Amino acid sequence: MTDLTARRARVLGPRMTTFYREPVEIVRGEGVWLWDAGGRAYLDAYNNVPHVGHGHPRVVEAVADQLATLNTHSRYLHEGIVAYGERLTGRLGEGLDVLTMVCTGSEANDIALRMGWAATGKTGLIGTDATYHGNTHLVSQFSSGRTPIGGRVDWVRRVPAPDSLRPLGGSAEAQAEAFAAGVARAIDELEAAGHGFAALILDPFFANEGFPDLPPGFMAPTQAVVRAAGGLVIADEVQPGFGRTGGHFWGHERIGLVPDIVTMGKPMGNGYPVAGVVTRGEIVEAFRRDFGYFNTFAGTPVAAAAASAVLNVIEAEGLQANAAEVGTHLLAGLRALDHPRIADVRGAGLFVGVEFTEPGGLEPAPEFTAEAVERMRERGVLMHRIGRGGNILKIRPPMVFSRENAELLVATLGEVLEGMD
Amino acid sequence: MTDLTARRARVLGPRMTTFYREPVEIVRGEGVWLWDAGGRAYLDAYNNVPHVGHGHPRVVEAVADQLATLNTHSRYLHEGIVAYGERLTGRLGEGLDVLTMVCTGSEANDIALRMGWAATGKTGLIGTDATYHGNTHLVSQFSSGRTPIGGRVDWVRRVPAPDSLRPLGGSAEAQAEAFAAGVARAIDELEAAGHGFAALILDPFFANEGFPDLPPGFMAPTQAVVRAAGGLVIADEVQPGFGRTGGHFWGHERIGLVPDIVTMGKPMGNGYPVAGVVTRGEIVEAFRRDFGYFNTFAGTPVAAAAASAVLNVIEAEGLQANAAEVGTHLLAGLRALDHPRIADVRGAGLFVGVEFTEPGGLEPAPEFTAEAVERMRERGVLMHRIGRGGNILKIRPPMVFSRENAELLVATLGEVLEGMD
Repeated sequence: MTDLTARRARVLGPRMTTFYREPVEIVRGEGVWLWDAGGRAYLDAYNNVPHVGHGHPRVVEAVADQLATLNTHSRYLHEGIVAYGERLTGRLGEGLDVLTMVCTGSEANDIALRMGWAATGKTGLIGTDATYHGNTHLVSQFSSGRTPIGGRVDWVRRVPAPDSLRPLGGSAEAQAEAFAAGVARAIDELEAAGHGFAALILDPFFANEGFPDLPPGFMAPTQAVVRAAGGLVIADEVQPGFGRTGGHFWGHERIGLVPDIVTMGKPMGNGYPVAGVVTRGEIVEAFRRDFGYFNTFAGTPVAAAAASAVLNVIEAEGLQANAAEVGTHLLAGLRALDHPRIADVRGAGLFVGVEFTEPGGLEPAPEFTAEAVERMRERGVLMHRIGRGGNILKIRPPMVFSRENAELLVATLGEVLEGMD
Repeated sequence: MTDLTARRARVLGPRMTTFYREPVEIVRGEGVWLWDAGGRAYLDAYNNVPHVGHGHPRVVEAVADQLATLNTHSRYLHEGIVAYGERLTGRLGEGLDVLTMVCTGSEANDIALRMGWAATGKTGLIGTDATYHGNTHLVSQFSSGRTPIGGRVDWVRRVPAPDSLRPLGGSAEAQAEAFAAGVARAIDELEAAGHGFAALILDPFFANEGFPDLPPGFMAPTQAVVRAAGGLVIADEVQPGFGRTGGHFWGHERIGLVPDIVTMGKPMGNGYPVAGVVTRGEIVEAFRRDFGYFNTFAGTPVAAAAASAVLNVIEAEGLQANAAEVGTHLLAGLRALDHPRIADVRGAGLFVGVEFTEPGGLEPAPEFTAEAVERMRERGVLMHRIGRGGNILKIRPPMVFSRENAELLVATLGEVLEGMD
């Protein structure tokens, strides 16, 4: 154990996890590259928070300038938050025109769920059974891992998540109806239990679920079920939003979902803590009528400057198009790899992965996947794993990832897999 | 309505409140001064987030440098968060030696309460009946205003808050025992209801309650009651922490409280979204054993740089001593004001206020107080009001407030009060 590791364990306390068997001490970042304390470079194929690249000078400059000028809260008038709100809502569908700024994706989902309560007068909530929406008390009820502290509440139900290799209903064609049927059952249960049904929350890319391949109309049957029951759909865009999937700016557009509430977080400020909730005016009206919501650090001039700079760079550098092009190249490269444990290669834009199973079957191979992640790190490429079985490589780099970066990743993974059974 | 006000109402939605009858459009800040779009200067006697002063160059530089160098999450090793944790916990009492960084005071309290659950195995929580601890679903259960969305839970009980002019138990001497008796009753109720008792959360300055004058041993009886019941005390230092009260670095030291968990927020990063929870290792162990807590934007190299810079400036500029000295001068000036509605002048360091009542009695005068706040703003001094009755001036400026600033505030308030009945 290094001195830093020991000091960290002491002051940050027990069970403060790190990535990798031998944790990496990162000291500098630029674009898609990170450097450790020994000067070694790593290709960052994991981090989506530095959406437009580590240390992007336009974002740094925007934050530094605004910090030196003014950083106060949103109870004073300021052009910055208003202009950002107009620009951001302009990128969303009709009716999604009111922005509430918060600081983290967890805070965004925490209030989006309560907006659902306030707008419907009901308390029942639904998520998938292989997801994660954040870390507050309310939102952690959706985590698929350990039972939340304080126990699970009766008014949150979890429905079977879609899957690429093991589709609900037994086939890719049946999956959309089968997912909707799961939601319908959960709604019936919530109504029978007296909670009523307020909202369904989901990541439209189903990232934590393993980002299954889904057809564009996948959500139509579910959306009809939710609407018929008088509930709302919350699209958690923390992972797929801001052009990540290449073909669309938002994940919900990709699968033909029309959400009532959209939440966003991680990539929004390139690392400055900014998150937000966009919905219709009448939902905000219901929420604020019942609760005098205010968030000190949210929607400040600096938060707005950081978020605006991110949109500027996405546009100026054509990063959504880059995600589409490089993502296609990356997928093609990964698909050309040959290994008996590769069961599937899928994803969209710059969010792709390789699913590993026991050879010839569907049994997830989490240890194999974990070992591959470690060996990639040893060879200087940072990624992680995801999915219900922990058996899918999570490749989700900054959006400035290039074709050359993709080729280096694929070549390195090829070498790693060659040495593994 | 100005164009900006109209645009703001449209894109930030209904019931997005502003301060003051005529909202102020602030465009620049420096030290204790804010300037509006027309170039008018305002003395900021309200904002505690810019703890070491608006736009402090050392904080701006620290954030800008670190943003340009590296800003990634805490699952990689980094010296910044470790060094900050060591420094911060070094300022807290024995055993309070493990830091969990988060982004907002709400997030800090949301996990502190769940730490209480995890450490005790019970769910009952207690706060005062005139408080505010934040805006997540869990934490909003403590808000004394409207019923939280989704209704009030049975496992949160609210006890009568101490008061300067209307002391619990009928006298200042009886108040400490009377407050403890309220807590004891709430514990009995929680146990009778089957929830058991996990934690008492309070701001040791009782800021929202109206910061009553309390003797140094005030918390001793309550602490004994909590300990005897096997519960924990959470000190919410979001308002009094970081030297604000002048005589002590933490509010809990001032009233002789020995907390099990300390939460902090607003002033910690001078406006960069940083907050934290400090407690004992075994409480963190219980919490993380039950929940794989991770917070993407928290404890990043930039968050640590901002928070470290704030400690640097507090120390280099002697701001705690400044708060003590200027606060004493400010209190003396306020006490020299004469008006039939001034019922009390109190506070500590740079958190002071004037309580207004109907002449000669104890009936709060919230409209009078609101009018005084408006007239101060018209004369270029920004403050607000607080307390159960909304009848106490809230004077809580950046810690670089000078004797001259205090004299300007007192003189302006004198002029304002002269024109009011």
